Amino acid sequence: MQEYSSKLLENAINQIAKLPGIGRKTAVRLALYLLRQSSEEVSLFTESIANMKNNIFYCSKCHNVSDSPSCEICSNPHRNSSQICVVQDIRDVIAIENTQVYKGVYHVLGGVISPLQGIGIADINIGSLLSRIDMEEIGEVILALPATTEGDTTAYYISQHIRKRNQNIQISVIARGVSVGNDLENTDEITLTRSILNRVDFDSTLK
Amino acid sequence: MQEYSSKLLENAINQIAKLPGIGRKTAVRLALYLLRQSSEEVSLFTESIANMKNNIFYCSKCHNVSDSPSCEICSNPHRNSSQICVVQDIRDVIAIENTQVYKGVYHVLGGVISPLQGIGIADINIGSLLSRIDMEEIGEVILALPATTEGDTTAYYISQHIRKRNQNIQISVIARGVSVGNDLENTDEITLTRSILNRVDFDSTLK
Repeated sequence: MQEYSSKLLENAINQIAKLPGIGRKTAVRLALYLLRQSSEEVSLFTESIANMKNNIFYCSKCHNVSDSPSCEICSNPHRNSSQICVVQDIRDVIAIENTQVYKGVYHVLGGVISPLQGIGIADINIGSLLSRIDMEEIGEVILALPATTEGDTTAYYISQHIRKRNQNIQISVIARGVSVGNDLENTDEITLTRSILNRVDFDSTLK
Repeated sequence: MQEYSSKLLENAINQIAKLPGIGRKTAVRLALYLLRQSSEEVSLFTESIANMKNNIFYCSKCHNVSDSPSCEICSNPHRNSSQICVVQDIRDVIAIENTQVYKGVYHVLGGVISPLQGIGIADINIGSLLSRIDMEEIGEVILALPATTEGDTTAYYISQHIRKRNQNIQISVIARGVSVGNDLENTDEITLTRSILNRVDFDSTLK
């Protein structure tokens, strides 16, 4: 156990070191960096985090983070509310929004089914997704889940339950394939297999 | 510029992304991690940092961080107050304390002379070091500064000023040499040169 000349510093380092991916050395560096900043800067830092934690809402519809009970995306009349993109995490919403290509709405599961990690169907927002499908006019559900066994299991489970309720909803999954900038040699076999089987018309890629 | 569905989240991400070595993606990950923690956990986190910033002292003697105006090391009667180890940074105190081999006291410069970065003699705690040498009974000053041009310049400047005041103080520098676990092949020439010139009696290393 390390000894510090200040308990106050030690407490701050211990708290910072709890963050994921932040080791002890980095925590020391960050704590001393904050110590060197002005009181105003440090207040801005701590208050922005406290404010976020205390005042943020989770959208009652899609479970995305929001500054009001209904998020900006769900309450935006220009978004296509009949198209739901199902994602694992809020981060995925941010990533897809950055592409500026998707104009529908979202549903944030908050995880994927993972027996190994003890995450079951009741632990993620599947029930509320099925309720939305029951209550609203949905034309398409896009499953944008991780390309893992857990992601695939979750996608399969959701698709089965949607099918039980409604045969007419289009269920899509995002394309798996060779990432832009990657060469074939370094692409794993499953991805390469999928990208060959799901090949698309060349002219369509030029649009 | 990225768009987030919550200004509160965006503010927290912006603040976290100001930390050194924390990129935008990591900031998003850390903000969402904090959001998932309990309110109590987040309070502990923000308050530990605010407390540190607002209540910490810098030791009036050695400039190390402390919970009181005189630090634990300076006020410890078991430490040899006639031996001063001069370091660049509080982090260096932590690193040396962890070795448990040094029983003297410290002097934290808070930087090294660097004309390129606009850090001059007056910007670092050299004046107070020379005052200590004038006022106290000092037997040895150990210069434990970075092995860089700036570190060497600072060490030279300090040693010259100590010599002007007192011919009897022992001035030492920490040994430069091949790090434990490193092979010679990958050691730079200057380090290797120094480690050959400053070679020590083999038997003395077995003590």
